[in-house]
Amino acid sequence: MHAIGIDIGGTKIAGALVDDAGNILKEIKIPSPIDDSDQMVQAIGSVIADLEQGQQVVGVGVAAAGFMSADREIMYHSPNISAWRNEPLKKRISSQTKLPVMLENDANAAGWAEFRFGAGAGRRGMVMLTIGTGVGGAIISDGVLLKGGFGIGGELGHVVLIPGGRDCGCGQKGCVESYCSGTALLKSARDLAQSSSPKAKRLQELMSESGELSGEQAYQAILENDPGACELVAELGHHLGTAIGTIYVPILDPELVVIGGGVSAVGKKLLDPIQEAFEESMPAKGYRPELEIVKATFLNQAGLIGAADLARHSFA
Amino acid sequence: MHAIGIDIGGTKIAGALVDDAGNILKEIKIPSPIDDSDQMVQAIGSVIADLEQGQQVVGVGVAAAGFMSADREIMYHSPNISAWRNEPLKKRISSQTKLPVMLENDANAAGWAEFRFGAGAGRRGMVMLTIGTGVGGAIISDGVLLKGGFGIGGELGHVVLIPGGRDCGCGQKGCVESYCSGTALLKSARDLAQSSSPKAKRLQELMSESGELSGEQAYQAILENDPGACELVAELGHHLGTAIGTIYVPILDPELVVIGGGVSAVGKKLLDPIQEAFEESMPAKGYRPELEIVKATFLNQAGLIGAADLARHSFA
Repeated sequence: MHAIGIDIGGTKIAGALVDDAGNILKEIKIPSPIDDSDQMVQAIGSVIADLEQGQQVVGVGVAAAGFMSADREIMYHSPNISAWRNEPLKKRISSQTKLPVMLENDANAAGWAEFRFGAGAGRRGMVMLTIGTGVGGAIISDGVLLKGGFGIGGELGHVVLIPGGRDCGCGQKGCVESYCSGTALLKSARDLAQSSSPKAKRLQELMSESGELSGEQAYQAILENDPGACELVAELGHHLGTAIGTIYVPILDPELVVIGGGVSAVGKKLLDPIQEAFEESMPAKGYRPELEIVKATFLNQAGLIGAADLARHSFA
Repeated sequence: MHAIGIDIGGTKIAGALVDDAGNILKEIKIPSPIDDSDQMVQAIGSVIADLEQGQQVVGVGVAAAGFMSADREIMYHSPNISAWRNEPLKKRISSQTKLPVMLENDANAAGWAEFRFGAGAGRRGMVMLTIGTGVGGAIISDGVLLKGGFGIGGELGHVVLIPGGRDCGCGQKGCVESYCSGTALLKSARDLAQSSSPKAKRLQELMSESGELSGEQAYQAILENDPGACELVAELGHHLGTAIGTIYVPILDPELVVIGGGVSAVGKKLLDPIQEAFEESMPAKGYRPELEIVKATFLNQAGLIGAADLARHSFA
């Protein structure tokens, strides 16, 4: 039997019909009505109905960013979707379909997809870092997703790496996210482009028409091996590798760390500095087995695939 | 049926016969022959034989500090016991008894005792910090002890809290252990006692005969509410509370943190600063449920009780 995965983002709702090997058989994307809770629920319901048509479906898994209740009934607060404040999301989505529905944090769903069908397939556990707008985390230990006592564990982006460092959206200073997110990378690139550094030349050319550097332009500079842009990626990787070595590994001791999210598309330019900083910083070096750090298999579809598979695990 | 717990330390081997409610029915302590692997194994065997006599016993759990293999067969390296380097400890202890034997890290065993019979009884998960010579950690999530992919997870003392900070025995700088262990506390007290600070007065009186402050003298000053010594305890608590709020909680989201080990005996003088620093430093304050931070129930017997109960879980 197939399962349906839904990934609710700040701009789009994506839905997919997924088979039991993690293959997407059909995918739908529609705009995300983030300001209206009723429209949002109806839009999700219409995506489910469309995907379900003519299929045998075991259930629906819904992935979204935000703080959810431990029982995954209530979305307390979502950073991207202003309509959701203490929203009884599971119940509301369930009102739109006869299928059983379950919710999960989007970073957890993405991590589950990699664990089941991607870079972590065949492992007993792994840690996933999703480097996108923010830095998401997922922890899988002995085949089980770590949800935490209040349902909000695995917030690997909101660990303090540099006490007193950069302001983070969470109210802290120096979180991993404030150094290692795509947003942080773009901000560094814009700062460089506004500077008089000789390393800013290519970035300045790219942004010359618009007056402000876009994410796509920064990405292009990285693909062109522009030294200025690549140095910023290496700095991001250095911070992330240090966080892996000095914080995540002593606590979680994963056999595998998977780096995913949009920024991971740059590949070795990010992975090599992560590996290097990890090796420099891990404790008891030489006395412990070394984990592998690899790029994620899925890029944008991990949340969909993981949500569908979590639904299959819950309801099959 | 009862189980036997063995706790192997740098000075003593302790053994206990433990019932299924965590009660110690009989306890034995003998010196620890740390330099001789054969004598060590024979000593452990004699403790087991003595405890087993005339009893129905389900198995033996052995707790010790050190890096063990993920399958808990080999002790790679133990900080206190020089005879153990790549020691096939499980096999060697098994040769001394007909009972089934299992090994576990001592901090994990202590955490398990609190989870089953102590401060964490009735919870689904918890984090334990054991503040003794070092800082040990144990993570229990959804009823399962987190061991990590290579068997060395939960090393909460070797997380970097202050990058570039104090040297730690593990080779890193700024680990939690280098600020929050009993050893770090005694070092701070000795430094204060050697100084000309007016806060050093009572510590100087206490050490006047020996010339060097002992752990007992420092503890006495704390019990007497000496402002100098109590300030050092508060500093330790501040660091630990900050580590809980900025590192352990975002990753693990425990519903409960249990503070154990010898230093926890000072009680509120330590717990209050931990609570205060935790509340100041946790992310998304006001938007998340607040965990409880409590003192451990067991002081020195947690390792014994936990090791015995882990054996019961393995072999019953």
